[in-house]
Amino acid sequence: MATITKDHAPLPEALLRELEGILDDRVSVAVAIRAQHGEGESFHPNAPPDAVVFPRSTEEVAAVARACSAHGVPLIPFGAGTSLEGHVQALHGGVSIAMSGMNRLVELNGSDMDCRVEAGMTRKTLEGHLKGTGLFFPVDPGADASLGGMTATGASGTTTVRYGTMRENVLGLTVVLAGGTVITTGGRARKSSAGYDLTGLFIGSEGTLGIITEIALRLHGIPEGIAAAVCSFATLEDAVNAVITTIQTGVPVARAELLDDVQMDAVNRFSDLDYPVRPTVFFEFHGTTAAVREQSATVSEIVSDLGATDFEWATKAEDRTRLWKARHDSYYASLALRPGCRGWATDICVPIGRLAECMLDTKADIEAEELLAPVVSHAGDGNFHVLFIIDPDDATEMERAERVNARMVKRAIAMGGTCTGEHGVGYGKIRYLEAEHGEAVHTMKAIKRALDPDGLLNPGKVVPL
Amino acid sequence: MATITKDHAPLPEALLRELEGILDDRVSVAVAIRAQHGEGESFHPNAPPDAVVFPRSTEEVAAVARACSAHGVPLIPFGAGTSLEGHVQALHGGVSIAMSGMNRLVELNGSDMDCRVEAGMTRKTLEGHLKGTGLFFPVDPGADASLGGMTATGASGTTTVRYGTMRENVLGLTVVLAGGTVITTGGRARKSSAGYDLTGLFIGSEGTLGIITEIALRLHGIPEGIAAAVCSFATLEDAVNAVITTIQTGVPVARAELLDDVQMDAVNRFSDLDYPVRPTVFFEFHGTTAAVREQSATVSEIVSDLGATDFEWATKAEDRTRLWKARHDSYYASLALRPGCRGWATDICVPIGRLAECMLDTKADIEAEELLAPVVSHAGDGNFHVLFIIDPDDATEMERAERVNARMVKRAIAMGGTCTGEHGVGYGKIRYLEAEHGEAVHTMKAIKRALDPDGLLNPGKVVPL
Repeated sequence: MATITKDHAPLPEALLRELEGILDDRVSVAVAIRAQHGEGESFHPNAPPDAVVFPRSTEEVAAVARACSAHGVPLIPFGAGTSLEGHVQALHGGVSIAMSGMNRLVELNGSDMDCRVEAGMTRKTLEGHLKGTGLFFPVDPGADASLGGMTATGASGTTTVRYGTMRENVLGLTVVLAGGTVITTGGRARKSSAGYDLTGLFIGSEGTLGIITEIALRLHGIPEGIAAAVCSFATLEDAVNAVITTIQTGVPVARAELLDDVQMDAVNRFSDLDYPVRPTVFFEFHGTTAAVREQSATVSEIVSDLGATDFEWATKAEDRTRLWKARHDSYYASLALRPGCRGWATDICVPIGRLAECMLDTKADIEAEELLAPVVSHAGDGNFHVLFIIDPDDATEMERAERVNARMVKRAIAMGGTCTGEHGVGYGKIRYLEAEHGEAVHTMKAIKRALDPDGLLNPGKVVPL
Repeated sequence: MATITKDHAPLPEALLRELEGILDDRVSVAVAIRAQHGEGESFHPNAPPDAVVFPRSTEEVAAVARACSAHGVPLIPFGAGTSLEGHVQALHGGVSIAMSGMNRLVELNGSDMDCRVEAGMTRKTLEGHLKGTGLFFPVDPGADASLGGMTATGASGTTTVRYGTMRENVLGLTVVLAGGTVITTGGRARKSSAGYDLTGLFIGSEGTLGIITEIALRLHGIPEGIAAAVCSFATLEDAVNAVITTIQTGVPVARAELLDDVQMDAVNRFSDLDYPVRPTVFFEFHGTTAAVREQSATVSEIVSDLGATDFEWATKAEDRTRLWKARHDSYYASLALRPGCRGWATDICVPIGRLAECMLDTKADIEAEELLAPVVSHAGDGNFHVLFIIDPDDATEMERAERVNARMVKRAIAMGGTCTGEHGVGYGKIRYLEAEHGEAVHTMKAIKRALDPDGLLNPGKVVPL
């Protein structure tokens, strides 16, 4: 596997001693541990930190930040390692802060429908804690990411069309700043107009403005009724229009996932299914039993008008699970199309009225470059993913994928969209930030300099300095 | 009326000439015009700017900002003048930028359900533009505020429980920075993880970080069915519990407004109605006809269990209007309780589980201080308003109101809430910011200094410097 090795000073011995003074044996310089914390799940090359620390409290993170700051050494927070744009690579060396040891449920306020967790807790662990409460946390990016990582990247996913992204579901944060100062942002009130929205600023800042150690989350009531449906369409345009019409009709759809023909083929092969190899939409509806029935009926009409076939409904949990298995397995199904190859996932987001056009142009480009790249869309948000399946031994494949990616980003921005809807910038998309935001990037830089004057927080990410 | 006169240098003649060069006759130093732009609708004393300018484009605002910056003169944006916490007072003199001339609909994208407006447009003007499109903009703070002002204060209101605050409904902004640079933030995509959330940072920044000149807004489909209901309860606790149970049951209520006994008495007298003088909740339900019927039935059961009486339903538009008239008139009804007196509106927000306790303690405090102050609550958000009706000739009344306000804020913060849910900080609540945010206020100051190093943007507001 490729490794980035940039020139940087070795970790000062004195700092290592100080870190051991703070964390005892929870400091590692072992090559394997460092390598493990030098990449996420992306195609970006590994860039190992010089040391990895495993704090168990905000105070320990603050002490680590104070020590690193005194020595001028970079700090890179590490969640569950599911990053897709090179967020955790130690591009300039430094100390990786592995948050896995901070996974406590700090508080659960059932009647207020909120909770507070430590940043290392993964969303599935939280799901476990919420069992039996009648509540759930809706943001589902697919991977079992840490809630800190999801906050830091402004994650979203399959249910965003109904329940919002992390931005709409984080009430407040505890953050360790560059010099080790601890602040809390937001609160437990459902809304506030008291001062600048620091919570919103740290969401999506990818560890470059501070290290998130605790998160207050908004929870939702588990709906009485849930129904799922799968239907396939003759064209991608019809499939997109089915989702757009559903939203415009005001159906509060909980999920509307679109898989293209290439992805459906992969899913069929992987899970031994026989769905039509055509653009397919997986719907999910949440509400009272009656509301779900009504939503389903409305969408049945919409998709029939658009010529959908093979319409399949499921209201029982096991049937829904079977139906959604195809969607959930799509990543591994895609990789299985070409054993020995690696996946490179990229995403963009456009106004929903431009989604079909953007997807079709991108698919044409993928074909023209003779690449294998299934497309999956959170269609209700105007967001889609391309998963390039790349042979690491064919140097030109990566180049061709990069060209397709660059053109896709350019296309999205030209349509009023964004270079990333949910994966984040990391260092993989840093080059596109100015194209998207223009002068506003200077404002971002001014904020970065104000909060991290020495540039020690996850350097080389998000903001081109 | 009281006027603040702080010592500050007079407006340089050269700047006045430059402003006239940019805006011709759209520059005024007339005493009446300056006084008109020296206060909102609050009790805070008037502080007139030295001049008022009336730009018609972002470019003109930028030119004004450049000129003021060169002369070191403060800039204060002015929307519709409905501010409640002294946002527009020219505490250090300077130039007020009246945005009323910037009220164009820049674009309307029906199929994407978004639009872009100039910041001076009021929400009712936008309502007019949307007529016949099947779309509406949901944020309703009561007053016919400008959308720029609503963005700058992070406004919310009666429908926030269902549709969110300005934060959830603003997609992007055009902002003129301190030195006159123009940036655009956000975009038309429904979500983005590309860089720091500048849109969120400017929302609620009250003109202290930049001057908002255009706003991209998310629109919503007008629901097929709307129903309203009014019901009164024996105790405030029962009324609050009715709303909390409704939300916990998952009913997507569109409005849940609670008026206390004092407010209901005022409303009865003002509009010649005969509602019981008891804590009363006004509900509104949005959805399909069937969904609205189901929601109404569920809430009927909930409120009956809590002993609600005088339950009144309305599905026809004219009946709903009659029902809601009482709520809409509540401000003027309150003022009419004591002719010749003025109103001072304040608001706080707490986790919904603490709302009843916080309201009851506050009402006891109002009684102990022998004040007249109706209470109205956006109960679904945990947010409530106290409107002190104050005799300007009785010096002690204002002091007593200030004590009640200070204790209410302290109480809210102790409960995990906020010193203002929707009115904003202005300079009226600046003293409470550190109590609420602690160390985080230093981070806000760092951001203020980074974006406005000379402190010329609405100085003396939001952040205590």
